[in-house]
Amino acid sequence: MDARTTRLQRAAAARPGVIGLAGGLPAGDLLPRAPLAEALAEVAAWREDALQYGWPEGIEQLRTWIANRLAARGAVVEPGRIIITAGAQQALALAGAAFRGKTIAVGDVTYPAALDAFEAVGAGIAAEGGDARYEIAGVSNPRGLDTPDRDALLASGLPLIVDEAYCELRFDGRLPRPLIADAPDRTWHIGTVSKTLCPGLRVGWLVPPASAHASVLERKQAYDLQTSSISQAALARMLSRLDYEAALDRARAFYAERAERLVRALRTHLPSARFVPPEGGFSIWVETERTGDDVPLLARAIERGVAFDPGSMFRPVNRPDDPISFRLSFSSVDADAIDEGVRRLAGIL
Amino acid sequence: MDARTTRLQRAAAARPGVIGLAGGLPAGDLLPRAPLAEALAEVAAWREDALQYGWPEGIEQLRTWIANRLAARGAVVEPGRIIITAGAQQALALAGAAFRGKTIAVGDVTYPAALDAFEAVGAGIAAEGGDARYEIAGVSNPRGLDTPDRDALLASGLPLIVDEAYCELRFDGRLPRPLIADAPDRTWHIGTVSKTLCPGLRVGWLVPPASAHASVLERKQAYDLQTSSISQAALARMLSRLDYEAALDRARAFYAERAERLVRALRTHLPSARFVPPEGGFSIWVETERTGDDVPLLARAIERGVAFDPGSMFRPVNRPDDPISFRLSFSSVDADAIDEGVRRLAGIL
Repeated sequence: MDARTTRLQRAAAARPGVIGLAGGLPAGDLLPRAPLAEALAEVAAWREDALQYGWPEGIEQLRTWIANRLAARGAVVEPGRIIITAGAQQALALAGAAFRGKTIAVGDVTYPAALDAFEAVGAGIAAEGGDARYEIAGVSNPRGLDTPDRDALLASGLPLIVDEAYCELRFDGRLPRPLIADAPDRTWHIGTVSKTLCPGLRVGWLVPPASAHASVLERKQAYDLQTSSISQAALARMLSRLDYEAALDRARAFYAERAERLVRALRTHLPSARFVPPEGGFSIWVETERTGDDVPLLARAIERGVAFDPGSMFRPVNRPDDPISFRLSFSSVDADAIDEGVRRLAGIL
Repeated sequence: MDARTTRLQRAAAARPGVIGLAGGLPAGDLLPRAPLAEALAEVAAWREDALQYGWPEGIEQLRTWIANRLAARGAVVEPGRIIITAGAQQALALAGAAFRGKTIAVGDVTYPAALDAFEAVGAGIAAEGGDARYEIAGVSNPRGLDTPDRDALLASGLPLIVDEAYCELRFDGRLPRPLIADAPDRTWHIGTVSKTLCPGLRVGWLVPPASAHASVLERKQAYDLQTSSISQAALARMLSRLDYEAALDRARAFYAERAERLVRALRTHLPSARFVPPEGGFSIWVETERTGDDVPLLARAIERGVAFDPGSMFRPVNRPDDPISFRLSFSSVDADAIDEGVRRLAGIL
């Protein structure tokens, strides 16, 4: 990520009164504080394995829960194939490392930290072509839209790195058939509870192709031995009691309502902006009619009391004729501030 | 690590009745269950930041605690230079990545997972020479002895990757002056609470040279965004109330007594074994008078009901005339089982 953007985002976060339409944080109101506090206290007090070292693949209870959820969507995956990771981010780094010296195609805009992960482990990045394809399935980031080219992806024969970080947060609750169900030998399936339950646990997962499992597990162990035992044990404990489907329904309704507010605010204050109302997730991708460097625009926006994610962050390649764009996140901002945030943004455009 | 060894160690762990002199686990009796359960429940219930995303460098409260402890030992390190990592293991991977394409010297025997970390990030490994030096300071692993060549290390002018994982567990409580105090511009200082408090939190730290801080922080973010917010917040909360020095004193006395038992058992049942009684840590390095492959020996040992870490794991280069050696850990085995474990081991030698 552009070092200027990083500095600006830190400045914005530290500045009182800035309406934060940046970042991809889940809503504080949806964090399962009480159930998690209870689960954490229980496993720490009663289970030595929650405080000790564990195996690099993670605990079986969690891997079985993940396998069961995949099975319900048509993908038969043995729990033994699943590796618990430090969030989806580490899953991206582990998958990317399998393509060191090769190129991963990511499309025209994508999740910036995926670009960082792939680059950090030595994989090249391109918009199209390449030796593998990265796809944010079900709900894309930053666009918030379903995977448009599912059949083309399957027909391509390419290895697929499939990131389902936002998939369960489709507002319609319609979970697509996982790509791993139809391309099990070349799909690197990635999931997480960071968007649906709690990012602070840092729990995600990776299902590499069976042929790559041993080498990926070795790499996971080399990177950090294992994912936090406490996080894993508490999450598994909480999931054994929590109605996860009900939590998802609550989250979908909550975010759909926020998205609707942002859509209304954009139509009111920025009628020239181009965007597609999102089908899920945390954000809307907005394109303006102007071109140029979007980072000075962010600096001005922060001065006016609003922060956003500049579009250049999301592009693997930035060209002079790219429209100035931005990702506006509605997920963690106060609902009543959305309208005012967009009004301020319109003021600097 | 040798895939045979991995399989055998998993088999040994799953087999009832096997006396485990393998592994580097802290004693279950020393894990701070009640204080940690309390701290976890408090931060999860009351602090949204403990459940949310955080900055890649980790929380300030923890970095200040680390800086204060270093200052007390003569090393002035600004908290802003410290990066909280997923255990010391991730700190090793991050430090190693700065020497991608170069060679790190590790000595004749060392911590096997450091070899894995360096290799996974593309650094080469040698016993001596190289472009940087990895040193387990204060209490080495597997030998359990103080750094013999401190002056030579400082005189070498080489970048130093200094791993203090066991340093606070010197039985005499004498903490050496940190190498970062005398070579601040080329020391990569690594610490953790995994041995002294709780490995399941997965909290460690890295102080890179100031000139490398920005790039290391970027890599940390690319690898996993940040270390678990829950783990960091709960650890900081617990440390604000816990008498850490008293906990260290308890741990030192506990492990010193276990070490003494293992020394006695070795002198009784394996009088021909060569070893130096450890000055701290979790283990003793034992050399036999035989040469050959040590992995079949481990297989036989497990059959007889005892497990150890074969010496070949710890060597960056194994040679046919290396003595068959092993690391015997006294840290997490039942005290009364130590004598019987060594008796069984003697039976197969």
